[in-house]
Amino acid sequence: MTDDPVDSQASIDAVGDRTADELDPRVHEYTAGEEQEGIPFIGAGPGDPGLLTVRGKELVDEADLVVHAGSLVSSALLVEHCADAELVNSVGKDLEELIPLMRDAHESGRTVVRLHSGDPAVYGAALEQIDALESEGVPAYIVPGVTSSFAAAATLRTQLTLNGVANHVAFTRPRGKTLDAEDDHVAEFVEMGDVTTCIYLGTHAVSDTMDRLLDRDGIDPETPVAVVYHASWDDEDVITGSIADIGEKVESVGYRASAMVLIGEAATGAGYERSFLYGDWANGGATDAANGEPDDAADAAETTETEADD
Amino acid sequence: MTDDPVDSQASIDAVGDRTADELDPRVHEYTAGEEQEGIPFIGAGPGDPGLLTVRGKELVDEADLVVHAGSLVSSALLVEHCADAELVNSVGKDLEELIPLMRDAHESGRTVVRLHSGDPAVYGAALEQIDALESEGVPAYIVPGVTSSFAAAATLRTQLTLNGVANHVAFTRPRGKTLDAEDDHVAEFVEMGDVTTCIYLGTHAVSDTMDRLLDRDGIDPETPVAVVYHASWDDEDVITGSIADIGEKVESVGYRASAMVLIGEAATGAGYERSFLYGDWANGGATDAANGEPDDAADAAETTETEADD
Repeated sequence: MTDDPVDSQASIDAVGDRTADELDPRVHEYTAGEEQEGIPFIGAGPGDPGLLTVRGKELVDEADLVVHAGSLVSSALLVEHCADAELVNSVGKDLEELIPLMRDAHESGRTVVRLHSGDPAVYGAALEQIDALESEGVPAYIVPGVTSSFAAAATLRTQLTLNGVANHVAFTRPRGKTLDAEDDHVAEFVEMGDVTTCIYLGTHAVSDTMDRLLDRDGIDPETPVAVVYHASWDDEDVITGSIADIGEKVESVGYRASAMVLIGEAATGAGYERSFLYGDWANGGATDAANGEPDDAADAAETTETEADD
Repeated sequence: MTDDPVDSQASIDAVGDRTADELDPRVHEYTAGEEQEGIPFIGAGPGDPGLLTVRGKELVDEADLVVHAGSLVSSALLVEHCADAELVNSVGKDLEELIPLMRDAHESGRTVVRLHSGDPAVYGAALEQIDALESEGVPAYIVPGVTSSFAAAATLRTQLTLNGVANHVAFTRPRGKTLDAEDDHVAEFVEMGDVTTCIYLGTHAVSDTMDRLLDRDGIDPETPVAVVYHASWDDEDVITGSIADIGEKVESVGYRASAMVLIGEAATGAGYERSFLYGDWANGGATDAANGEPDDAADAAETTETEADD
């Protein structure tokens, strides 16, 4: 605790009330990835120092103080990119300690950076810190990063969406002390059949989660499951199996944390169909587009090619 | 076409059959993000050159030939990172043309890089190219990237998961020529209530998609929707509204492609609760953990802090 504590919940509520009514002008002022005034909340990526973004690296290179999420940000990354900065481990520090620490450093002219693992928008707690900082007069913003399920897919040499196999992706976490049973959607996602279900924060509960899936008539026990421990870290490890046997396999290795669990046929990278994006299909697509459906050619900064027939 | 065409579908099937039975030894040999032998399929990120990864930048810096997905990879990124390489736009080229082009360049000793927008695992068509290349004896691998929905969240100054608001995230696309109506899960995701639904490849269909959601009794027409056009590009634009009015708003601006559609309360960044990760709650969590539930402390390379009570 510092001498100047803040009421962070009140700060969050105040900022939250404002945001619901009107857009922050910075939403239109800055594009994602652009450097802004204040403290950047940087997605450090899954762990490998090479999977930090170029912008993230520039920002940590300049930093005097890096507040990072302890064991969730790999030491390899901290050594490679943050050697010149003071490092503060945020684990065990509450908002009442963290916010004044970052505020005071910022106000004394130091360059402060907050490093979150993966992407800050996915199972992070960036926003409550950002809102608390801003209510203290310190601007902050988010720099996106690579999430661990993308690293897991790269390791497995597969895609999370795969033509004829998986049309959708779900990021989810299993029931527990912070998620009620009725908000646990793992079975609903898997039951859809064409969803790759990525379970975050569920390593300790793989057996329980799979047991619940085995109770559902609509779910094939032989559905593939891949567990990627510490995706992109030096000690990365991969365990593959099915809903029926992955729980036992993970327990026998002993992992209780820090693994990504991917459920679905796409985990194998097999059995897919050639896409509609190349070759002969493209001609059919052009015809279809002419027949009334708009050509969604350049749609989404995500697809790799024209999706001429959608 | 070159003089040496390949039967790409047969190649995909052959590699697919193999992958289903046994893991590629490289799955254990390399970690995600690590440089490997062969042609890297690099996630270029959403568009801003700063949102390419450090590893991706190193690889394109060294490249003699960069095959990129045309208008989906921003010209700003190509100018900043690929100035020294030959650029080939893959749009309009089928596999029978692309694969020999990359193979021949690789075999003649040139350094070849394939640049996909976003992350290659999400609505890309990387794997069919990788499998076709490998059946031709040219190894290839995936380097993950930042997906456009993360850039959209950064622009909106919010998280896709948000305590008390959104526990899950879905990446999805709407029905169309390449997705049957029964595989369209947009309404199911939105109906869950605590899912942030990210629609890729759906800019042209925002009105139709919203109309279908309005037909469902379980969905509140006032559910917030944010549309981020060209997230992280210089011409990035944000339109916000609700399921009831966003279709009209998008149509009035005229966007027909290249926007991310985020549905759910998390799109506003408002109304969330302070997490269980900080402050007084942490004590309760520690107690709970001691009472039998495992402490998932370092779980997932994604959460920012210990989730002591899960």
